[in-house]
Amino acid sequence: MSSIPEHLVPSRLAKRADFDRKTIYSILDEALFCTISYVTDGKPFSIPTAFVRYEDKIYIHGSVGSHFIREIEKGIPVCISISLMDALVVARSAFHHSINYRSVVIFANAEKIDNPELKKNAFEWLTNKIVPGSWTYLRPIKENEISKTTALAFSLDEASAKLRTGMPIDDEEDLDLPIWSGIIPLQVTRQAPVADSHSGSIPVPGHLRKA
Amino acid sequence: MSSIPEHLVPSRLAKRADFDRKTIYSILDEALFCTISYVTDGKPFSIPTAFVRYEDKIYIHGSVGSHFIREIEKGIPVCISISLMDALVVARSAFHHSINYRSVVIFANAEKIDNPELKKNAFEWLTNKIVPGSWTYLRPIKENEISKTTALAFSLDEASAKLRTGMPIDDEEDLDLPIWSGIIPLQVTRQAPVADSHSGSIPVPGHLRKA
Repeated sequence: MSSIPEHLVPSRLAKRADFDRKTIYSILDEALFCTISYVTDGKPFSIPTAFVRYEDKIYIHGSVGSHFIREIEKGIPVCISISLMDALVVARSAFHHSINYRSVVIFANAEKIDNPELKKNAFEWLTNKIVPGSWTYLRPIKENEISKTTALAFSLDEASAKLRTGMPIDDEEDLDLPIWSGIIPLQVTRQAPVADSHSGSIPVPGHLRKA
Repeated sequence: MSSIPEHLVPSRLAKRADFDRKTIYSILDEALFCTISYVTDGKPFSIPTAFVRYEDKIYIHGSVGSHFIREIEKGIPVCISISLMDALVVARSAFHHSINYRSVVIFANAEKIDNPELKKNAFEWLTNKIVPGSWTYLRPIKENEISKTTALAFSLDEASAKLRTGMPIDDEEDLDLPIWSGIIPLQVTRQAPVADSHSGSIPVPGHLRKA
């Protein structure tokens, strides 16, 4: 994780940079979605998608027919951006408003997974990340479902984390103003499951009630 | 909004495409953050940032010293991606798991805002979007704060929306399996405000209690 492009760690933000692998992993394991950017004909494109980390790589799936997948499976450079927005930082002036966030940026080239066993594993990791405990509850995956899906891996060798935590940093002379200042935490919550019309009297399984 | 690159509306997803301006505006007005992708030396870079829509443009702010801002203020092509993740779609098979989402992708070139009045307006729109009702409560913005900030506008001429709603679409032969299927709605909530140490006995203002 040494070759982070210098300009992605602007000096005024250097204190927010954190290259520790444990921090990177914890952000990747909490976030469900990433945005993958790539270049076609000199122009930028980006696509949000679900992903999972396993050891020192992240994995995504896509339809073999998707233009996005067919472009990036060539191994062209991609930039993968992951952000967890933790709080609105409400200062005494608009200028010092900010966001508490934890983010990771990854520069990598896709490695296409050809090994069917690893493809199946990647399916399992992703499914269990999005809906923990679900893999063994579901109808088992079929050979042709694996063959209709492209699985791509991305190394975390060039991954970096950046974060902001804590309270607003107001101008010294504003601190005594009669203006409230602080943070408003943001939280993503999973609501109660809603059954489809074919679920009938099947109880919501335990792993979904906990989720 | 006519020149959406064809490959961003893959045929298998065409039913999820929606080019209606009202839909695009509603997604942009609900989302607080976007991811902006651009190309430097042929390679993709992407950065998450807060944004606000006003009429048929979106606006962002950044430090005049930021490398990201200095790159994109040149007017190079950018791709701006906005996603609201509404629900996990839990099918009877891993293969048919999906996400209910509403997303917008915008292809544009930054227009740098030089007019100080418009820059100030953009500050106000953004502040009031992130913390509704806050602009008039705060210490007024200063001239030098406006001059230290770059404001950029992006046209929505090449914006498109894509979304998935509703229940899982399982294979016909899986519908009678004793497996629960449905959706798990996701919700981003604002938690109770937490005051900084200088706020003392200043009450949380009404616009924050409502937020």
